[in-house]
Amino acid sequence: MGGDHGPPVVVPASLQALKKCPALHLILVGDNDVLQEQLRNQSYDASRLTIQHASQRVEMDESPSQALRSKKDSSMRVAINLVKEGVAEACISAGNTGALMATARFVLKTLPGIDRPAIISTFPTLSGKNMRMLDLGANVDSSPEHLFQFAVMGSVLASAVDNIKEPKVCLLNIGHEDIKGNELVKATAQLLNQTKAVCYAGYIEGDQLYQGDADVIVCDGFVGNVALKASEGIAIFIRNLLKEGYTRNLFTKFAALVSMPILKSLVKRMDPDRYNGACLIGLTGIVIKSHGGAKISAFAHAIEEAIVQVEKNIPQRISTEVEQLLKLSRDPS
Amino acid sequence: MGGDHGPPVVVPASLQALKKCPALHLILVGDNDVLQEQLRNQSYDASRLTIQHASQRVEMDESPSQALRSKKDSSMRVAINLVKEGVAEACISAGNTGALMATARFVLKTLPGIDRPAIISTFPTLSGKNMRMLDLGANVDSSPEHLFQFAVMGSVLASAVDNIKEPKVCLLNIGHEDIKGNELVKATAQLLNQTKAVCYAGYIEGDQLYQGDADVIVCDGFVGNVALKASEGIAIFIRNLLKEGYTRNLFTKFAALVSMPILKSLVKRMDPDRYNGACLIGLTGIVIKSHGGAKISAFAHAIEEAIVQVEKNIPQRISTEVEQLLKLSRDPS
Repeated sequence: MGGDHGPPVVVPASLQALKKCPALHLILVGDNDVLQEQLRNQSYDASRLTIQHASQRVEMDESPSQALRSKKDSSMRVAINLVKEGVAEACISAGNTGALMATARFVLKTLPGIDRPAIISTFPTLSGKNMRMLDLGANVDSSPEHLFQFAVMGSVLASAVDNIKEPKVCLLNIGHEDIKGNELVKATAQLLNQTKAVCYAGYIEGDQLYQGDADVIVCDGFVGNVALKASEGIAIFIRNLLKEGYTRNLFTKFAALVSMPILKSLVKRMDPDRYNGACLIGLTGIVIKSHGGAKISAFAHAIEEAIVQVEKNIPQRISTEVEQLLKLSRDPS
Repeated sequence: MGGDHGPPVVVPASLQALKKCPALHLILVGDNDVLQEQLRNQSYDASRLTIQHASQRVEMDESPSQALRSKKDSSMRVAINLVKEGVAEACISAGNTGALMATARFVLKTLPGIDRPAIISTFPTLSGKNMRMLDLGANVDSSPEHLFQFAVMGSVLASAVDNIKEPKVCLLNIGHEDIKGNELVKATAQLLNQTKAVCYAGYIEGDQLYQGDADVIVCDGFVGNVALKASEGIAIFIRNLLKEGYTRNLFTKFAALVSMPILKSLVKRMDPDRYNGACLIGLTGIVIKSHGGAKISAFAHAIEEAIVQVEKNIPQRISTEVEQLLKLSRDPS
């Protein structure tokens, strides 16, 4: 029921995903009447699509604590409960990020050894390789131990999903030299330098985020969120300037016409739809956050992201890795 | 002597600035032989250009403490000394940023009431208005009081240079609601909400940096540096994809040809040269930092930035404003 568009996007995206993935079963959680209405006159395999009624919905501007307290029958809460009960293997939501994080953390709990879940997402890079970055805004005022845990989780995800043997993990900083950075980054670097659990490759600066040198980039949620949104901001700036330029007069419109294949390939390469579906990592279950403004194909992509995480058994893998680490730190021999 | 190019950029840029600004006097500080060589066969008004020999230079990768300790006759140190002694009214350098900041702070000291100098620079926005942002990397682990001082200094600069009566000052955050953000941002917002010294307009998110809604954007140096460099990173990504697309084959090269006016106007609008010249604000003298990779016209722009700051008497204005504030806090009636 969440996101900017709600069921008119989520339902068609679900039908699209069901067609594409024959093994997929989906439970639509939300207002029964609204969902039935969306499904009317649609053809789909009813044995793989059920509706679970929920009488409430979390508003996009509702505070997480408010949602947690007073929306116990919201579509979000019911969906996460289904994961907790083992009825569903993953939950996908385009709703209020803060409420989703708070509810998921409250209901599912974090994995043993993980203090805080983080938001991780995938980005395109110049090299063509994917880059994963965390935390993108779930946690502010993180400690070095939190960032260390993020590094381990990001490394496990990149290794499992992208089949990278030893994912290169970098710390986001404002310089490469040891003396550069704030206290958080310097203390985290010390922890990462001492571990064999991740392949730590040192500091990376903001202008190298999209070069493809790192498989996983770790930072505090405040910093990650700013970096991500500043990137969006400048991309929108450039898009608007191009649009302005190409629509100025007849000649520029002709230039736009002949440039169309190039501009289309640019948009495709950076297409946020293809990268939709951030993961709330570090929980005992799988929760995927779609962009609130996602359209049908983007939301379908978030569903596919959930399928991959289920198939790869991500929470279990993180749990095993962290358990191994905790064992090592208890018994360093 | 600093920057990626040294005198071959700085000297021609200086001659360019001398031509453009008839009231300008410049002192080239550095190796006398190298500078004389650069000036050979050039025509210029010798009464407005002198050389001050300095036997050392700070390397680009030298640590600030090392530079401060062992490079007492470096071009950087001598140039800042000239400002201290009142021989020069401003210092412009393309050299090592950390060393420049440390040396300027050590020699010139901060203004009364200012704990730390900050790096502030100007950026283009969609609305066509300029936006100034600080701190861009001089300070990490800032306190709310530091950010408050940055807000005051940024506001004074925007008001004096851009003739804005009440510059709109925003705090960079990861959301608009009061509950969003880290402890630093929340505590700073409290300070800004209580003051009349700046026109505080609330939180701003990373994706709105370049929209032109704020005249001044305040953040910790770690966050500002990451935001700035992440923006650079994505701009380079887009530029490379466009370049790749437009050079693919004969047809795309034709598309590039007819698109040239649009692409050129895009580059001009975002031209980093036009925005070269960050200011080390909060010191008793004017110090301008040019981008290390700046070419001639960009470095000339940094010189012009220094001229404006001298004409507008920025350190004095900040000092007066801060003194006023300190007086108010002592005597709130």
